[in-house]
Amino acid sequence: LGVGELVFVGLGLNDEKDLSIKGLEAVRSAESVFVELYTSLMGGFSLERLEKMCGRKVAVLSRHNLEEEEGDILLEKASKGRVVLMVPGDPFISTTHVNLRLKAVRKGLKIRVIHGASILSAVIGLTGLQNYKFGRSVTIPFVDSAYLPESPYRVIQENRASGLHTLCFLDVRADEGRYMCVNEAIEILFRIEQEYGAGVVTPDTLAVGVARAGSEKPVLKAEYIEELKDYDFGPPPQTLIFPGRLHFMEAEALIVFAGAPENIRRLVG
Amino acid sequence: LGVGELVFVGLGLNDEKDLSIKGLEAVRSAESVFVELYTSLMGGFSLERLEKMCGRKVAVLSRHNLEEEEGDILLEKASKGRVVLMVPGDPFISTTHVNLRLKAVRKGLKIRVIHGASILSAVIGLTGLQNYKFGRSVTIPFVDSAYLPESPYRVIQENRASGLHTLCFLDVRADEGRYMCVNEAIEILFRIEQEYGAGVVTPDTLAVGVARAGSEKPVLKAEYIEELKDYDFGPPPQTLIFPGRLHFMEAEALIVFAGAPENIRRLVG
Repeated sequence: LGVGELVFVGLGLNDEKDLSIKGLEAVRSAESVFVELYTSLMGGFSLERLEKMCGRKVAVLSRHNLEEEEGDILLEKASKGRVVLMVPGDPFISTTHVNLRLKAVRKGLKIRVIHGASILSAVIGLTGLQNYKFGRSVTIPFVDSAYLPESPYRVIQENRASGLHTLCFLDVRADEGRYMCVNEAIEILFRIEQEYGAGVVTPDTLAVGVARAGSEKPVLKAEYIEELKDYDFGPPPQTLIFPGRLHFMEAEALIVFAGAPENIRRLVG
Repeated sequence: LGVGELVFVGLGLNDEKDLSIKGLEAVRSAESVFVELYTSLMGGFSLERLEKMCGRKVAVLSRHNLEEEEGDILLEKASKGRVVLMVPGDPFISTTHVNLRLKAVRKGLKIRVIHGASILSAVIGLTGLQNYKFGRSVTIPFVDSAYLPESPYRVIQENRASGLHTLCFLDVRADEGRYMCVNEAIEILFRIEQEYGAGVVTPDTLAVGVARAGSEKPVLKAEYIEELKDYDFGPPPQTLIFPGRLHFMEAEALIVFAGAPENIRRLVG
């Protein structure tokens, strides 16, 4: 009867209060409310507090529910009324949900998207680096075997050759409770450096770590890798940036906001 | 006495209800509340409704206040108590605010950032294109003289040569009430194409226009430029994307979410 509606609501970065007023209203007026919490870690989030704030029961969907069972629970409910699926950050930055949305549209469901704050713009903004100077971004994956992935290393190399910054997302394996930290990402990149030897990630490479963007006290540190590799960022989630050529204002921002050494001004050009 | 605090709050994309619960609480507990509305257009925004929702008077700061007067009103207030500055989207994607934050930190003020939804992640998410396949983004500027800017054209060209997508922000001149639309951006790019002739933006180039991301009914249309140049997207704000090489899932997303012609599947590779 075409009454089905699936509303994707972005939860934002850190805790339940990052939800927008619009998102809250959508949750309150929905017939069923679901959330997935496996695509990103929200460091200050509590399901109980979310339920209390919304005045609604919220069912948690696992990767198994959304990928292996292809969201059948959700799509079945959404074919009969208005269903909300809350997701960390901004919807569809995770490809999982693109697939679900394709399936929903093909079933004739109405789709609405209520956006939330994303790690993508948040870490760019926090560091003061300029949005249009970022090249493509990349994920540093956990390395559990002898195989070392070459592509993140090459992306940093290519961006730098064009004077561009690289935003590195760090791997998340929520089902194993593993969230990669900056120190571990650097160690993996060092191993790749030893394999390929192009001088992309060396002790005197400047990098910027960001931990817990969106929390009350995010930690930012810009340093040469030699020092940064042992810096204590505290708990995840964390992100790593390799700056390319710096604008004058970007160097000032890294010094003032992220405690970078003053001599990074030599990278301005 | 170090009690000064400046809180940057992102308003999100479309209207006052895109504000987060956390942002709302920060506004309610602030001594003074300011907003700037000139860096982006929020199509459904009303200052009166914002003030009513927050239960607070909100003073509007102009570009003149924040740039020529260097935010002096704001920084003066913030040196004595907690001040909130609300900005469209996510803070610091506009470089104006980076400068203000630098000045505030140097004055010894405490800074806090409450993030909002950004056009950056929103348009990527809405189209279903994959975040890590975007190269650097670029702004298409208004062209009021004989001088045609070459750099946006070259950015699209370089990204495409690497198989990457290009996100084009369209120029905003809020003080003149001018917000560039997709049709006008294409016309400007055609003129640049005629000047440089590298075949970057031709009638059979695929592009994706997005209008009013974050509103209840955003408009998405993927088409060859020949058709897209006359497509009616309605009012601004608008954004334009030039896709590079498409993943199978990206082509499906453009067909299903943005009404792309079925033959874009030939671009998968």
